[in-house]
Amino acid sequence: MENKYLSFAKEIAIQAGKIMKKYDSEDNGASYKTDLTIVTKADKEINDYLVKRVKEEFPKHCVDGEEGGYGKSKYVWVCDPVDGTAMYARHIPTSVFSLALVVDGQPQVGVVYDVWKDSLYSAVKGDGAYRNGQKISVSDIDFGDKRGVGNYDMWPNAPYNIYEAVEELNKSIYLVSIGSVIRACMAVAGGDFSFAIFPGTTHKNCDIAAAKVIVEETGGRVTDFNGEEQRYDCDINGAIISNKVVNKKLLETIKNYAKKRD
Amino acid sequence: MENKYLSFAKEIAIQAGKIMKKYDSEDNGASYKTDLTIVTKADKEINDYLVKRVKEEFPKHCVDGEEGGYGKSKYVWVCDPVDGTAMYARHIPTSVFSLALVVDGQPQVGVVYDVWKDSLYSAVKGDGAYRNGQKISVSDIDFGDKRGVGNYDMWPNAPYNIYEAVEELNKSIYLVSIGSVIRACMAVAGGDFSFAIFPGTTHKNCDIAAAKVIVEETGGRVTDFNGEEQRYDCDINGAIISNKVVNKKLLETIKNYAKKRD
Repeated sequence: MENKYLSFAKEIAIQAGKIMKKYDSEDNGASYKTDLTIVTKADKEINDYLVKRVKEEFPKHCVDGEEGGYGKSKYVWVCDPVDGTAMYARHIPTSVFSLALVVDGQPQVGVVYDVWKDSLYSAVKGDGAYRNGQKISVSDIDFGDKRGVGNYDMWPNAPYNIYEAVEELNKSIYLVSIGSVIRACMAVAGGDFSFAIFPGTTHKNCDIAAAKVIVEETGGRVTDFNGEEQRYDCDINGAIISNKVVNKKLLETIKNYAKKRD
Repeated sequence: MENKYLSFAKEIAIQAGKIMKKYDSEDNGASYKTDLTIVTKADKEINDYLVKRVKEEFPKHCVDGEEGGYGKSKYVWVCDPVDGTAMYARHIPTSVFSLALVVDGQPQVGVVYDVWKDSLYSAVKGDGAYRNGQKISVSDIDFGDKRGVGNYDMWPNAPYNIYEAVEELNKSIYLVSIGSVIRACMAVAGGDFSFAIFPGTTHKNCDIAAAKVIVEETGGRVTDFNGEEQRYDCDINGAIISNKVVNKKLLETIKNYAKKRD
């Protein structure tokens, strides 16, 4: 029988996808948060739905959603309702829904849903990672391999300026920045990308929690910018998500070239 | 009655979309060209289909496709069968089909098809630009506006290194690199992005020809890296695609920071 938390997370993901599609076909109501990111009606509706459903099914658990949470518990549902909202609001189909059950700071269950390609990614710690029920794994594509692709995110006033690192890495691999770190992490998990770099810190645990358990269950690595393990019940210090073969050079390049802003 | 060249271009676009979807649902057969870009079965099949259909309908015209062409004529069908093949081969739905009828170096008709969102963009010179029959126009979103998004492309050994320009621009606008310059141009045409920067030269006219007429018909601007008009029956010298308000600063930044490689 499927893990009850996984079944629950999948149900929320499918509903989230329906909400994303609904608002995409009309005005998706983009408004602007003070931190310059965009929040849409879909973000809010998905976040509210999650809170309602957690209260119904797991009343002792709590929610840490990018658009709001409630409660206090050892069991935390960490959610980014729409990762890549800037792309969502602009009709570029790279945004995804992301949800993790975090226990003592570590994700035990993770689900990511790409409604545009109808791809549901999931993992329970220790049980492997799947896309629509098919087992997936990271690639062994290294720098210098023609097949390599890496992803990064950068935005004005990001906590780290990683452009020098990106320029250095781009000497030996094709780089893109598709506008959703979690979608990029799923490309790492499925073997399509070799890595993703994310220079976020404050309240950015939502962006990595589910990706962490999924990518690790495919044989990949997820650390902060110092190569350290990170918790997802607090802020993170950047994130590096990769297959095994690029991990060392990637970490060294970030250490040598990423600049922390004051 | 619709322009006969436009009707023809739309028919090819719809067929191209079917081919893209067909190979996406199976192994899409990515192989590697010597210039390190990826060509897929879909690229080849679409290119072959275009050549066959032009021969049937307009036997005096010629074809300049990214995957091959034929003939010599004043009327040139310039095609990128799958722009963003690296994304296509990795299941990131940002790739598009692009086709222009170029006469004396200038695109008279342009069609771009985003099969993932079922969005068909089209323009005939002087008649406005449309997405699925609805008129579209560029935005007036400037640098420093929270709503702003710009796109750029970079790859190992691109003719220009634009990372310094990108770092400079990113101080006042959110930037992404979605892996298809033509899809990004359509986001400019529809008012979703403020600009796209493309550092390509040799045989890169295929990437801009259709976008040029569509973006210009929405009120946008398309020039090379020096701010000059360009022809699409020969190589280009980079491309800057933008709305009117960001154009001047964008050009200046490229002139000051883009570095031509030897």
